Amino acid sequence: MPYVNIKITKDGVTSEQKAELIEGVTTLLQKVLDKNPATTFVIIDEVETDNWGIAGEQVTKRRNNQK
Amino acid sequence: MPYVNIKITKDGVTSEQKAELIEGVTTLLQKVLDKNPATTFVIIDEVETDNWGIAGEQVTKRRNNQK
Amino acid sequence: MPYVNIKITKDGVTSEQKAELIEGVTTLLQKVLDKNPATTFVIIDEVETDNWGIAGEQVTKRRNNQK
Amino acid sequence: MPYVNIKITKDGVTSEQKAELIEGVTTLLQKVLDKNPATTFVIIDEVETDNWGIAGEQVTKRRNNQK
Amino acid sequence: MPYVNIKITKDGVTSEQKAELIEGVTTLLQKVLDKNPATTFVIIDEVETDNWGIAGEQVTKRRNNQK
Amino acid sequence: MPYVNIKITKDGVTSEQKAELIEGVTTLLQKVLDKNPATTFVIIDEVETDNWGIAGEQVTKRRNNQK
Repeated sequence: MPYVNIKITKDGVTSEQKAELIEGVTTLLQKVLDKNPATTFVIIDEVETDNWGIAGEQVTKRRNNQK
Repeated sequence: MPYVNIKITKDGVTSEQKAELIEGVTTLLQKVLDKNPATTFVIIDEVETDNWGIAGEQVTKRRNNQK
Repeated sequence: MPYVNIKITKDGVTSEQKAELIEGVTTLLQKVLDKNPATTFVIIDEVETDNWGIAGEQVTKRRNNQK
Repeated sequence: MPYVNIKITKDGVTSEQKAELIEGVTTLLQKVLDKNPATTFVIIDEVETDNWGIAGEQVTKRRNNQK
Repeated sequence: MPYVNIKITKDGVTSEQKAELIEGVTTLLQKVLDKNPATTFVIIDEVETDNWGIAGEQVTKRRNNQK
Repeated sequence: MPYVNIKITKDGVTSEQKAELIEGVTTLLQKVLDKNPATTFVIIDEVETDNWGIAGEQVTKRRNNQK
């Protein structure tokens, strides 16, 4: 009965990539813990880079600095 | 002081339906646990069907298959 | 396919009360949005009063002050 | 290694204000718990006022009533 | 910079199994989205079966019924 | 009406430190966004180091390696 929430930055992730993540996590939980895929939920949140901070700084700014 | 987070797929839920959910959950917590509505928070997240997986598959695809 | 997370303070909530919350929320989502109970998840988190703050103050202290 | 999630209503919060929140929370965790900013994550969620309930009522409606 | 939260029932999951989940999810995010493992967080929550509901029923009860 | 969730590793954080975090975050939201402390919630989750992964590795192991 697992519930998985994946938060990533909003960066043009495609529907196919999302499908790959969902399938990969579900398979992993089945393999490691024998969890039933039928009751495995995966929710992906895409977060604006202005709304994600790391090291005290917005990801937007961090990326600009790295250019 | 309860905090409730409801995640549902983004399917054209109306403002009235959201109001009903908020009121219903708040009343339930008051009835069952005597929680004060004044400090009961309810947050509804609407998730794109591409971003929600069940049984290893995106809800978008699952619904198409059921047609 | 709803997912609901209820956070309440850790206050000796009984198993029966938890069952009531779970059943109540599931029924509400079926009534308001016609959601299938079979794929409705409810997770209850019980939070120590030292770890919950409101109005800038721990619930533990807040309750002591109200005595 | 802290992870902080801030949920606020969607009210035209500026990028500068978000930067201030991110920096402020990261500094606080360093000051109080000596947490390394390099591995401190902050994620801000902006929630529509229709999707946020308090006292059994949508924030949207609550604000209209206070006008 | 992904953040992943895995919620599972509290069922005597071993430290080795947790390590496998953490490593598997981190590798998946690197493979599918080229995410840097150094800034990938995974948090596992183990939830009492009394606190997890599905189909309107506590997992504890559901399992007893299936015996 | 903000809601803040702080996740940290379970490391003997004292009640006083938790109080400082709660007060600091609440003050920050008031200063930056003029949010009312009376309806600001802060919830602190303390996570076992076995359940927290970074860079594909449990924090428990990571710390042992750094000794």
